[in-house]
Amino acid sequence: MSPPLATPLPTRRSLDALLRPRSVAVVGASTRAGTIGAEIVRNLVEAGFGGPVYPIHPTARSIHSLRCWPRLVDVPDTIDLAVVSVPRDGVLAVVDDAIAKKVGALVVVTAGFAETGAAGAALQDELVRRTRKAGIRVVGPNCLGVLSTEPGVRLNATFAPTFPPRGPIACSSQSGAVGVAVLDHARAVGLGIHQFVSVGNKADVSGNDLLEQWEHDPDARVLLLYLESFGNPRRFAAIARRVSRDKPIVVVKSGRTPAGASAASSHTGNLAGADAAVEALLTQAGVVRTTTIEEMFATAALLATQPVPRGNRVAIVTNAGGPGIMATDACAGRGLVLARLSPDTDAALRAFLPPEASLRNPVDMIASAPAPSYERALAAVLADPGVDAVIAVFVPPVVTAARDVAKAVVAASRGADKPVLACLMGAFGVAEASALLRAQGVPVYSFPEAPAVALAHAVRYGVLRARPTGAEPALAVDPQRARVAIGRHLAAEPTWLPPDAVAEVLGAYGVRVPRATLAHSADEAAEAASKIAGPCAVKLVSASIAHKSDVGGVVLDVRGPDAARAAFAAIAARLEARGLAAAMDGVLVQEQVAAGVETIVGVTEDPTFGPLIAVGLGGVAVEVWRDVSFRLVPVRDVDASEMIGELRGAPLLDGLRGAPGVDRAALADVILRISRLRADVPEIVELDLNPLLPAPGGPGLIAVDARICVRVAPPADRVTR
Amino acid sequence: MSPPLATPLPTRRSLDALLRPRSVAVVGASTRAGTIGAEIVRNLVEAGFGGPVYPIHPTARSIHSLRCWPRLVDVPDTIDLAVVSVPRDGVLAVVDDAIAKKVGALVVVTAGFAETGAAGAALQDELVRRTRKAGIRVVGPNCLGVLSTEPGVRLNATFAPTFPPRGPIACSSQSGAVGVAVLDHARAVGLGIHQFVSVGNKADVSGNDLLEQWEHDPDARVLLLYLESFGNPRRFAAIARRVSRDKPIVVVKSGRTPAGASAASSHTGNLAGADAAVEALLTQAGVVRTTTIEEMFATAALLATQPVPRGNRVAIVTNAGGPGIMATDACAGRGLVLARLSPDTDAALRAFLPPEASLRNPVDMIASAPAPSYERALAAVLADPGVDAVIAVFVPPVVTAARDVAKAVVAASRGADKPVLACLMGAFGVAEASALLRAQGVPVYSFPEAPAVALAHAVRYGVLRARPTGAEPALAVDPQRARVAIGRHLAAEPTWLPPDAVAEVLGAYGVRVPRATLAHSADEAAEAASKIAGPCAVKLVSASIAHKSDVGGVVLDVRGPDAARAAFAAIAARLEARGLAAAMDGVLVQEQVAAGVETIVGVTEDPTFGPLIAVGLGGVAVEVWRDVSFRLVPVRDVDASEMIGELRGAPLLDGLRGAPGVDRAALADVILRISRLRADVPEIVELDLNPLLPAPGGPGLIAVDARICVRVAPPADRVTR
Repeated sequence: MSPPLATPLPTRRSLDALLRPRSVAVVGASTRAGTIGAEIVRNLVEAGFGGPVYPIHPTARSIHSLRCWPRLVDVPDTIDLAVVSVPRDGVLAVVDDAIAKKVGALVVVTAGFAETGAAGAALQDELVRRTRKAGIRVVGPNCLGVLSTEPGVRLNATFAPTFPPRGPIACSSQSGAVGVAVLDHARAVGLGIHQFVSVGNKADVSGNDLLEQWEHDPDARVLLLYLESFGNPRRFAAIARRVSRDKPIVVVKSGRTPAGASAASSHTGNLAGADAAVEALLTQAGVVRTTTIEEMFATAALLATQPVPRGNRVAIVTNAGGPGIMATDACAGRGLVLARLSPDTDAALRAFLPPEASLRNPVDMIASAPAPSYERALAAVLADPGVDAVIAVFVPPVVTAARDVAKAVVAASRGADKPVLACLMGAFGVAEASALLRAQGVPVYSFPEAPAVALAHAVRYGVLRARPTGAEPALAVDPQRARVAIGRHLAAEPTWLPPDAVAEVLGAYGVRVPRATLAHSADEAAEAASKIAGPCAVKLVSASIAHKSDVGGVVLDVRGPDAARAAFAAIAARLEARGLAAAMDGVLVQEQVAAGVETIVGVTEDPTFGPLIAVGLGGVAVEVWRDVSFRLVPVRDVDASEMIGELRGAPLLDGLRGAPGVDRAALADVILRISRLRADVPEIVELDLNPLLPAPGGPGLIAVDARICVRVAPPADRVTR
Repeated sequence: MSPPLATPLPTRRSLDALLRPRSVAVVGASTRAGTIGAEIVRNLVEAGFGGPVYPIHPTARSIHSLRCWPRLVDVPDTIDLAVVSVPRDGVLAVVDDAIAKKVGALVVVTAGFAETGAAGAALQDELVRRTRKAGIRVVGPNCLGVLSTEPGVRLNATFAPTFPPRGPIACSSQSGAVGVAVLDHARAVGLGIHQFVSVGNKADVSGNDLLEQWEHDPDARVLLLYLESFGNPRRFAAIARRVSRDKPIVVVKSGRTPAGASAASSHTGNLAGADAAVEALLTQAGVVRTTTIEEMFATAALLATQPVPRGNRVAIVTNAGGPGIMATDACAGRGLVLARLSPDTDAALRAFLPPEASLRNPVDMIASAPAPSYERALAAVLADPGVDAVIAVFVPPVVTAARDVAKAVVAASRGADKPVLACLMGAFGVAEASALLRAQGVPVYSFPEAPAVALAHAVRYGVLRARPTGAEPALAVDPQRARVAIGRHLAAEPTWLPPDAVAEVLGAYGVRVPRATLAHSADEAAEAASKIAGPCAVKLVSASIAHKSDVGGVVLDVRGPDAARAAFAAIAARLEARGLAAAMDGVLVQEQVAAGVETIVGVTEDPTFGPLIAVGLGGVAVEVWRDVSFRLVPVRDVDASEMIGELRGAPLLDGLRGAPGVDRAALADVILRISRLRADVPEIVELDLNPLLPAPGGPGLIAVDARICVRVAPPADRVTR
């Protein structure tokens, strides 16, 4: 990772030299076809760049018929953008020339920088230091280049041979190789690109910079990002949260599984965050995450052309049963719901469909359905207030021309305020019909799963976009009291707080804990138990043993002083038997809370993303069924409710089979208080309330067991991009 | 659904007239291009059918230059196969002609039969009755046709325009529309087809018949089925279990979700089974199930060309980091494991890879890697005993030709006894390289997810194929005692057995239940409790109330006669308050079993698939987290262990965090006993042991609560296909 840099960041405006240059130089241009330096020149010329291209070559007189110059400084013209593909050790000299020449922006294609280790990282830092001082924006190093289809610009400053069609998509890729695939796939599926930037090592221009650029560019209507790491995740969250209210952001984030994340960390020199943190970040930022590039494109094709669905109720209109069933399955598998069609819709369909047709959704018009039936059926289901989106499935039988059906689908979709997607399977005239649909702004897919996937992501975008901003509510908390309580336990190394300090900290933030007394002897335990009316829990207190129950350190259902004395002795004996007698600091004699639905709330820290807050269901369930939801701290009220709603076991909270449940508002309140605690007291590195149980005889929850780990807070995060 | 048919089924051999005809007639041939009758004739001719084609047309003299005849009986030649596409009401007359002409087989393309309702179903039954009597096999009706690429046959008796390349795949589709897409996709991805049959309504020839046909056809090496329903699921299971030991069977079964299943039932006239039953059936049959047609082909491409992997440990060799990470993620997401490479492999790679390369799996050779590096790296990881399969990822940079890399991958894969898969992304020469790989038997994919998906399915096939056949173990059970216990409760309507009968039935099959006494009054309850040493549970007994706890019908921790009397009164009062006093038949006073890890075992009945047995974890977990595994009754010992292993919460059984667990063998024993019980006593329609708990102070499990529902058994299943 690069050290922090003091030079101020240039402003967003300066990306114009990069994305709308009026002249381009290629440093490292080559006369040998098949080399990167030759391909870039050829791609610039063949895409029809709207300005002069200057190949820079030490000796050649011309390349691709263009007059060459030995160095940047020799060119008798201003240069907005210089693409650099000289060997690594020559890059800094080119940078100095670029500074002297007052070049507007650099695209450094050359590899061998931070991605290769310390020496490369040092070189990259020096590159950034010099260019930042001079106010030159840099893309890369270790990238594929930059591309724009904007009329009058038509820039292909990459070594990828594909120049995609013009369209509303702005795209950034952290991997050049994936970028090649993206451009290729865009052309294959006919999806138009506005601008594409391969950001490589992100030494200067980052995905965040591009998001801010595209936020204000009306030609960029859907933003696609391929990410492997976040340079500054919290800045990303802030920008994306704002931008995604206006424009959908669709992300593929690699390294999502533990195995993948390990690969990512050995790949770019940035640490890839654990996936829980990524998922939390993207959800909070309102970003749609897809698993694959194909899904990303399927989703972009929908979002770029059709209205955002207002809900998840889908109608399927088909002329073939099998594909209709497949589409139904795919929808249900992605959380979409097959709309229940209204009696009016039923009547409208019955008016023109043959008796053999199936009018229940999916509407199977059978193979004989002519093109006009598609138009009428689509109009009918689009008019149904219980329908949020429509998938038209068509398998050309011999009798009906795909072209005519395509026109009918286009006609029906025109003016509709609900999305219409087409799925054309088979071969008879499907290519022509698909092209027609695409040209008229109806996304078209060749198997029934893709439209379902795209629609599910679009529904999610709609939900994320529509949710209220929310707020961090006012809470009566006492940060000073919490800081005092942890003060004397702070050290450079993480330290678990003793029970009294835990109780004090939680008390300062209004989180209830059971009444408890610390006892250092069997007699003290007996004394403590005598003051508690109901049954007690007697629990080991130890600074060195993290999991009390693993060593037999918990005795439940202790009633009265004698039993407490016995429990103390039993715990001491068990530790003795394990050779851990010295680890016993005493026991906690605690009022025992009646069993109920167990929840947990906790805080952990991600090395890249910072503090995360979690809510989960059931002590055991969390470990075995992983029923837990994460967000980045701080969370707002809407986040807390969302987290709870995401739990698969949420029905338990509402009381299953008449059993007592858990007050969701009380659980949300605990989440918000713990989030505030962590935000106020950054010395807390880990916190577990596990389990929380409904408080006996009262509203709210009580943290039956609580642990807090603290350490001297590190200096505030360096500002990086 | 058709009524049962008494005529005996013809034997497997008779499919020869269908799949290897020496002459074909097309009844309903048409002179008008673009009609089904014209397309079939044209497709037959254009595919180069190896025998005469006879168009049958009432008046035309020739079609497509072929001499026409007015009726089948007029043709001056024997006819092996007649394809019928006349209007529905003319089909039976054609059938009579076919019988008179001694045609070998019919393909009835015409629709309008069982799929459209009762009248169509009656017509279909008559068609089957007549042809079965005459020994003529029939494909369809309502189908796309039959296709074979076999040299000397080259039959395209379909109205689909695509004739796929020759290859090892035999394929059957229940949907004509999906069949069109399958043929098209096969050609698009270069996957060779041996035979293809669109079975339509399956009036005679079924998927089961085709499985048996292909079992003995050495040219059919991978069997693909698109299914919407099972005509005879248990026959399918028996055939598939046998065939899949030799040849992989890959299935897409539509209607997998509840919404989809509802669509399926309105589609074909067959009831589609619930997905749990389908999943159980396919697992027991050793069949690989994929979600989509694309996945089916991705998997088939691997299984048709490469060895079956012996395990799930994958090595990834790449020249680009991003796609390597994507492949890693995709593998991990599908349950594959990134192999830990041995020190020997590490040394072998280090010997020729540059220092910038990443030698940890995924092996990132970086963009400069030449083709020979692929051959050496693949050889190194293939030689590693910790590697079961290899994915080679290649994104053509400018400097390395895709063709050369393809050759290197082919060379490395040759002779390897582990599967090698290729992923080629981007555009530079990828089409040519992909064709080369395919021609040499290396499956190739254009995004990193597909090879991971294919490999995961192939691993699953390997596991299913390798598992022992298993057996139903000998158990000391007493069917007669169980039947007697049930006898007097049997009625036409399903009836829940009273507790004493439940205990008797379970006792006869060696399933333990707690000691319990039925009490009809508070005094009887007190008397019963006085005989139990520890705490008791007092539970409502009612023939009409299914869920006791919903009405406050369970009191736990009852100690001594007075408490039992009070518990009886409390339950009676709660029922009284709900106006249910008359529903109370008494209470059960039961020794209370200490808390522990709860499991459930149950039996239910699927209308299509028959009895299913389930095992799950935790009373609550089963309902909320749906952690449950199903099989069809009867299960073998291997099935029982597999079922338990499939539970996500299985770690709880082994004792999480030092907590007591559950003996897996004891749980498997209960599964086997309940399976045997259901197999022996088909009068049982539902059975729940919920929860099972570890038996106090002894090995094995005890069914703390048990319910059994019986009714007079229906007549044995009709034999259908």
